[in-house]
Amino acid sequence: MVDSRWSPASAGRRRGPELERAILEAALEQLGTVGWNALTMEGVAAGAQTGKAALYRRWPSKTDLVADALRTALPQIGEIPDCGSIREDLHLLCVRTRAVMYSRAGQALWSVLHECDHAHAERFHGVISSRLQEPARQLIGELLVRGIERGDVRADATGPLVVDVIPAMLMYRSKVCGSEWQDGEIAELIDQVMVPLLRV
Amino acid sequence: MVDSRWSPASAGRRRGPELERAILEAALEQLGTVGWNALTMEGVAAGAQTGKAALYRRWPSKTDLVADALRTALPQIGEIPDCGSIREDLHLLCVRTRAVMYSRAGQALWSVLHECDHAHAERFHGVISSRLQEPARQLIGELLVRGIERGDVRADATGPLVVDVIPAMLMYRSKVCGSEWQDGEIAELIDQVMVPLLRV
Repeated sequence: MVDSRWSPASAGRRRGPELERAILEAALEQLGTVGWNALTMEGVAAGAQTGKAALYRRWPSKTDLVADALRTALPQIGEIPDCGSIREDLHLLCVRTRAVMYSRAGQALWSVLHECDHAHAERFHGVISSRLQEPARQLIGELLVRGIERGDVRADATGPLVVDVIPAMLMYRSKVCGSEWQDGEIAELIDQVMVPLLRV
Repeated sequence: MVDSRWSPASAGRRRGPELERAILEAALEQLGTVGWNALTMEGVAAGAQTGKAALYRRWPSKTDLVADALRTALPQIGEIPDCGSIREDLHLLCVRTRAVMYSRAGQALWSVLHECDHAHAERFHGVISSRLQEPARQLIGELLVRGIERGDVRADATGPLVVDVIPAMLMYRSKVCGSEWQDGEIAELIDQVMVPLLRV
């Protein structure tokens, strides 16, 4: 709990990891309220009730700080238990991926990408790649292997393009078409696209 | 041909459509050299060898001008003749869509989207939607119907999600994964994803 009487001086008594968490949280908070362009190290320091020096000791730039805040806050898709069929496995994966995309950090990450310039965008694309895209790709690959072993996925349904269909569809329809991926639409993605694509 | 001795006064003799083309071309040129943020109505007017008033008579704002320049310059996917199989039809469609994405105007459109703020982005998303996304969706739908009639596409492979797979994959792997969609990768998209997805 943050005591409203805390001042930078008293906040300075927080230990390293605790202070670090407060700074990352303040960065995410600033990002949600003022956006990427207006976010400043001063503003984040004030939000975390600490001094600018505490930030610069850990993150050489605003980009480093924000990338770290997003990376830390972005939820993970997590393990997908065997639900008995590829249909159920991929359905759960989609629901979990949607939760990451629409999480506070996921939304903030997209706003930053829209707002920042090209050089910074590469850095934030790196966060998406390492925290969302690569884990999703690997996880889907594992589900496909499980399906091949189970017998409800054709043996040659591996390869880099097949594992990208779900991430591509989730992102495209969300970002380009403005879809909110209601439950019914996720079910349609599985039944109209993934199950036919993978069937033996 | 633009005569290097032309001045705004002599350029003023150009007729409406000719002057309009020169202005739209100058806008695209400015976009490619200085980018969205640094583009000005003055700069475009100078590039088109005309005055600012000629621009404001036609486009109330920089956004209107640039959206119009992109809309006008963006190539169309065009009709897809019957190539004999859904495999060949979709291959040609992918090659044509790639050409639109990587055209000068297509690249400029993506740069603008990266550079401009959220309010303007909606306007430029509208250009993508009306000039690329909706035509692609409709065209793919027609190819699927042709395939169903021909007999190499299953009868229930219609619906909004199936027609979005190619645009989603082209965009996702290009914009998120940095793929350049070499010919071999397009062939893989057709053979590993689309043909299995659509087979009877």
